[in-house]
Amino acid sequence: MTRTVVESKTKTAILGFDEPFCVIGERINPTGRKKLAAELETGDFSTVEKDAIAQVAAGATVLDINAGVVYNSNPNPNETEPPLMTKIVELVQGLVDVPLCIDSSVPGALEAGLEAAEGRPLLNSVTGEEERLELVLPLVKKYNVPVVAISNDDTGISEDPDVRFDVAKKIVERAADFGIPAHDIVVDPLVMPIGAMATAGQQVFALVRRLREELGVNTTCGASNISFGLPNRHGINNAFLPMAMGAGMTSAIMNPVALPVGPKKLAEKKAEVEAKGIVLPADMDDETFCQLFGLGSTQPRAGKEMEAIRAANLLTNNDPHGGAWIKFNKAPDEAGAAGAAGGRRGGGRRRRA
Amino acid sequence: MTRTVVESKTKTAILGFDEPFCVIGERINPTGRKKLAAELETGDFSTVEKDAIAQVAAGATVLDINAGVVYNSNPNPNETEPPLMTKIVELVQGLVDVPLCIDSSVPGALEAGLEAAEGRPLLNSVTGEEERLELVLPLVKKYNVPVVAISNDDTGISEDPDVRFDVAKKIVERAADFGIPAHDIVVDPLVMPIGAMATAGQQVFALVRRLREELGVNTTCGASNISFGLPNRHGINNAFLPMAMGAGMTSAIMNPVALPVGPKKLAEKKAEVEAKGIVLPADMDDETFCQLFGLGSTQPRAGKEMEAIRAANLLTNNDPHGGAWIKFNKAPDEAGAAGAAGGRRGGGRRRRA
Repeated sequence: MTRTVVESKTKTAILGFDEPFCVIGERINPTGRKKLAAELETGDFSTVEKDAIAQVAAGATVLDINAGVVYNSNPNPNETEPPLMTKIVELVQGLVDVPLCIDSSVPGALEAGLEAAEGRPLLNSVTGEEERLELVLPLVKKYNVPVVAISNDDTGISEDPDVRFDVAKKIVERAADFGIPAHDIVVDPLVMPIGAMATAGQQVFALVRRLREELGVNTTCGASNISFGLPNRHGINNAFLPMAMGAGMTSAIMNPVALPVGPKKLAEKKAEVEAKGIVLPADMDDETFCQLFGLGSTQPRAGKEMEAIRAANLLTNNDPHGGAWIKFNKAPDEAGAAGAAGGRRGGGRRRRA
Repeated sequence: MTRTVVESKTKTAILGFDEPFCVIGERINPTGRKKLAAELETGDFSTVEKDAIAQVAAGATVLDINAGVVYNSNPNPNETEPPLMTKIVELVQGLVDVPLCIDSSVPGALEAGLEAAEGRPLLNSVTGEEERLELVLPLVKKYNVPVVAISNDDTGISEDPDVRFDVAKKIVERAADFGIPAHDIVVDPLVMPIGAMATAGQQVFALVRRLREELGVNTTCGASNISFGLPNRHGINNAFLPMAMGAGMTSAIMNPVALPVGPKKLAEKKAEVEAKGIVLPADMDDETFCQLFGLGSTQPRAGKEMEAIRAANLLTNNDPHGGAWIKFNKAPDEAGAAGAAGGRRGGGRRRRA
């Protein structure tokens, strides 16, 4: 049985076919988050702290840490990223107890993260590129950690799933040469946007099945890539995750948090409400307003994707007796995100005796 | 390629592995709906009319018609059900143009429905029970219609999926003896409640895969059975349907409609709102109230399950270029049901070059 063990000082997260899906929180990553990048340059870690706490509260069992910032004052990530990685790893593991995933393209930052992380972090990532294999696999061996293996190589990302499978197989074989077992390789078969490639879903489901059956490896993906460029991305993600889990996917790098309602949306809704002639009491706080008007919350909470994942855990028999499902749907602070049972009549389709 | 063709006078619904999922609306069924049963006894068909229109509007492509009512004035369904079936079939096909599914345990009602239905209805159902096989298969042959085959037999419903597969196989073989091709058999592998049987999901997914690969048949199920007895049933159904579709399920008998907000829920919400000191204008209509307060709608509309199915159609490459998905998410009357794209940042997980 393939089990990938990821550990903090005190907690273990296991990726496996008979384990609940492993949610790797992706938020601590300044790539594409200009505000966060600017904060980090000034030594402000408040967003990192909030993201760490919110993701764990929403159900992340591993947190990805990426310090890939480009400072205005120093554009060389080989100089800036390693010390920042150390700082963030130390900060996050002082705040929350889940295992970490050390994520960087910069070799020095990977090693800095591995040095700073307590327990057995996941390393993110190796690819099939020669240079990357020679660089990352020795670190994986030296620190005895599991690693995410992304299915691209020196020729780029192939649109042919068979080629991506072969890249994954090559990485598993090269890892074996280093004495790294297949159960410490977590393959990312690469999720293409379904809007650009109509077979993207079928490719992933078939690849995950093959990776599981032929290589015996666990899998992960950047789940939200599937819906890139399309409307109602959550609706697509919410179906994709259970389908991927049904095919055997065992983890995803994703955002488990429904972002809080911000001041702009609040102001718009208040204007809409008042335009309809509704008079609000002067002392109504924003959180009460959000809840009364079905707007979500001013606080971060579990996103709908977490509901889909928890339901799929139940349906893959990784939540025996539905204990986690029942708890998730009763927790008062998640009740809004989880939705209500609604008005459907009782026993579903009736069968004749 | 397995294609099950169901037709009304003017419309065709096709069940197939390369077709969008076929949603068979289950609402026109007095079983367990006392109010509807009482209406039908008095000749009031207003609920049937509403259910027909609402289900088609929500996306049903076939409507199940079950006239299985037990009148207070006459408890013998062999007398009451056939004329009622005729009446409802004629009524519904005068209102909407989708094909019908004639659903009864009463032989006379099946034949009455087949006589009344224009086009090529689906017959619901045959089982592996000897008496039922001998009764229904000749009707299937005589009327040249496809039939739902439920995987139970004279020994009842087996908890062993291999036994249920064998029952399905027996039905397909017996049908062949009558000259009925496998593509006109739509197998229901029987969905058990996941709360009572932890392997219920895995059983269905494995069975659907086998039925498709070994017997080449289309499949259906009473989808909501999976969540029976558990909280937040929609959350479970919304994950189950995409997972079943990923395994190869091609249709479901289900409720596509989110039931409208009723007077009781409206009154409760208004009381809650007023208790918080909010003053509503005297002339505010209920629909505006519902929409402003995130309560849904006083009108029936597509349920969340339809969003899950449409997303899964996209992910199984049965909505090329996402045309149906984009249209579904732009239609103003369904925008509320379909949800919004939300505040996630753009491109998902960023990849390094």
